[in-house]
Amino acid sequence: MSSTDTGEKPPYPAFEDFIPGEITTYGRYEVTKAEVIEYATEFDPQPFHLDEEAGRASMLGGLAASGWHSSAMLMRLNCDGFMVRSTSMGSSGIEEMQWLKPVYPGDVLSVRRETLETRASASRPEMGIVRFRFELMNQKGEVVLVQTNPIFFRRRSAGAA
Amino acid sequence: MSSTDTGEKPPYPAFEDFIPGEITTYGRYEVTKAEVIEYATEFDPQPFHLDEEAGRASMLGGLAASGWHSSAMLMRLNCDGFMVRSTSMGSSGIEEMQWLKPVYPGDVLSVRRETLETRASASRPEMGIVRFRFELMNQKGEVVLVQTNPIFFRRRSAGAA
Repeated sequence: MSSTDTGEKPPYPAFEDFIPGEITTYGRYEVTKAEVIEYATEFDPQPFHLDEEAGRASMLGGLAASGWHSSAMLMRLNCDGFMVRSTSMGSSGIEEMQWLKPVYPGDVLSVRRETLETRASASRPEMGIVRFRFELMNQKGEVVLVQTNPIFFRRRSAGAA
Repeated sequence: MSSTDTGEKPPYPAFEDFIPGEITTYGRYEVTKAEVIEYATEFDPQPFHLDEEAGRASMLGGLAASGWHSSAMLMRLNCDGFMVRSTSMGSSGIEEMQWLKPVYPGDVLSVRRETLETRASASRPEMGIVRFRFELMNQKGEVVLVQTNPIFFRRRSAGAA
């Protein structure tokens, strides 16, 4: 359960509920070997994401998840942690994303989220933009992925255009 | 078949084969409704990625793929287009990625790749870094996703450290 879960009914949080500087942690995602290979087979069939021996021979040091799979796991943790019950309207993209360490089968991942900035939309008075920094952490407390990106949220009360 | 497929045997291309300024197009990916919903169910279960009506009521204008799914489709096109038979050693992350337009079931996607820069690795003489700009295009020629990122490739002949 996310520490942002205050018992409020959905849709919550809305744009107004995000406070710049706020840091919260949430989630638990167990990475399995079957899932790593399944994802890679479908979207990133490079040998080091498919095979133990090829993984060991690579910079990854062992069979490791595609970076795109790690990003997808973060998205799932964010959906469960706050987005699905929020007023999320989507996102325009990613400002920066770094795959800092390999994600291995058996790893247990969680999220540290920092709210960087909130601003009203100039073109859509019903919407606000929240910029986040997300860190995906493994069970050793190592940051395996860091990502900065804006997400659009509906405002509880529409502002002036 | 990629226009970079010159008939050379794998591993090809290696670091030395990427020329800054070179532009190439390749790939064909047909997006299905079943796949859009399957991906969203697993990684991005926001209503507008799961349900026609919720999609129509959203900024997306209809049931549309998760942006992370679009990124994964681009990765698959890149793997098939050149990466799997190349000397790819992986990537450290994404400099920027924008989801410019929704990707809908029925869309047929392809890639336009521009090689921005190539440079030797300072720490690994066997490796070079190539920065690319990838555009994911739909069947109307609209760019739906743009992404700038470095990929590591083994050098055919190791340089001096």
